[in-house]
Amino acid sequence: MNSAKAKITEIQATPEEVAPASGFRVFNRIVDWITNERTQLIDATERINEVVRKSGIRNGIVHLQSLHTTTAVFINEWQDALLHDVRTFLEDLVQRGDYWRHNDPVYSDCERKNADSHLRGMLMGQTLCLQVRNSAVLLGSWQSIILAEFDGPRSRSMSVQVSGV
Amino acid sequence: MNSAKAKITEIQATPEEVAPASGFRVFNRIVDWITNERTQLIDATERINEVVRKSGIRNGIVHLQSLHTTTAVFINEWQDALLHDVRTFLEDLVQRGDYWRHNDPVYSDCERKNADSHLRGMLMGQTLCLQVRNSAVLLGSWQSIILAEFDGPRSRSMSVQVSGV
Amino acid sequence: MNSAKAKITEIQATPEEVAPASGFRVFNRIVDWITNERTQLIDATERINEVVRKSGIRNGIVHLQSLHTTTAVFINEWQDALLHDVRTFLEDLVQRGDYWRHNDPVYSDCERKNADSHLRGMLMGQTLCLQVRNSAVLLGSWQSIILAEFDGPRSRSMSVQVSGV
Repeated sequence: MNSAKAKITEIQATPEEVAPASGFRVFNRIVDWITNERTQLIDATERINEVVRKSGIRNGIVHLQSLHTTTAVFINEWQDALLHDVRTFLEDLVQRGDYWRHNDPVYSDCERKNADSHLRGMLMGQTLCLQVRNSAVLLGSWQSIILAEFDGPRSRSMSVQVSGV
Repeated sequence: MNSAKAKITEIQATPEEVAPASGFRVFNRIVDWITNERTQLIDATERINEVVRKSGIRNGIVHLQSLHTTTAVFINEWQDALLHDVRTFLEDLVQRGDYWRHNDPVYSDCERKNADSHLRGMLMGQTLCLQVRNSAVLLGSWQSIILAEFDGPRSRSMSVQVSGV
Repeated sequence: MNSAKAKITEIQATPEEVAPASGFRVFNRIVDWITNERTQLIDATERINEVVRKSGIRNGIVHLQSLHTTTAVFINEWQDALLHDVRTFLEDLVQRGDYWRHNDPVYSDCERKNADSHLRGMLMGQTLCLQVRNSAVLLGSWQSIILAEFDGPRSRSMSVQVSGV
């Protein structure tokens, strides 16, 4: 679509940066949060950067995985007005009040009646993989790492794995 | 949003676990499925764990990629009632009966009329990256790896790559 | 769901392919685009393959990260009619004309009034991780890598990291 019109140019290419052929390592940490609302967005950027710094890995990948199906991890700008819109949008896209079998005792033994939380978590995803450059998480100027709680208040854990050299 | 109110504490941190600086390996496998309905959800967790065990890699990353645009791979709880809701939700979010150019012979030579399948696959994503810990896929208690067929019945392939030490 | 009926067979398994235990490397590049419409889809497949070839890495992972919250990177078939449907679907799912706090001067100092762009970018995701096999990006026959602009025209950058052996 419109590909013909797209002016695609490689404006700038960083000098080749090839890490030395040795020293591959894997560093694992669990990071925990206590949430205090049913739907809550948390800025996880600084916590993740802390883990990356501790890992001593300069160049590679950091993989984040929230260990709960009713949560998510994604990127967006951390601005109050926008975060309000994110919440509104997701609550509107998946309506808590709709009929869901997961909430119906005839079909399900789940007492939390949290089908909406599951569907929001599935849609947004529970994993996020980011680049590590110069011992920090690579993020654009307006990108923050957001942990989303969709069925709080709860105690939540994220597994953080840094790998590289 | 509510960040000020969020009580964020690092309750527990696993002891530093740094894998030895040698032995990085990459292990590749193709795993196949035959589906028998247009929309079908398949629990792929055990198959993926089998590949991870065979790889001999203890610590690292497993990357899953379904090789078809009308499929997806994601995480959710494997519960019948919820899986019914997942299917209902996705079929409602992208309506098969809506007008789509991809299904219109004036614009498209695709005879499968599967625009809805493409849009569902795109929304849910065809790749998933998970951590490998102690020679197994790291998953929370209620997390299963789900392969979604959106245009079956078909024969489907997933490329599984395990890398690490 | 229907898992009992699913005939799951491992039709074909590639011979074990284990890369040698040495030579792990990381290769980084920034790739830039100039977009010329508010919503625009760009086929990035060839550009990414070019980076992978230059990296000299045969077996591993390529990680793509668009550095802007109002963009996304995902996989779909590159067909004009379908790309039109993708655009229509996303513009319908997140309505530009709806009330959003991010666009309201009472709550936000953002002058771009681009809440819809943020929500589309968040939904589709700004990162994509793919396998590198035989010095090329692994993609199914109909899979293309698509960079989506949701708030153009702008100058956009994607960080591409190839790691492996």
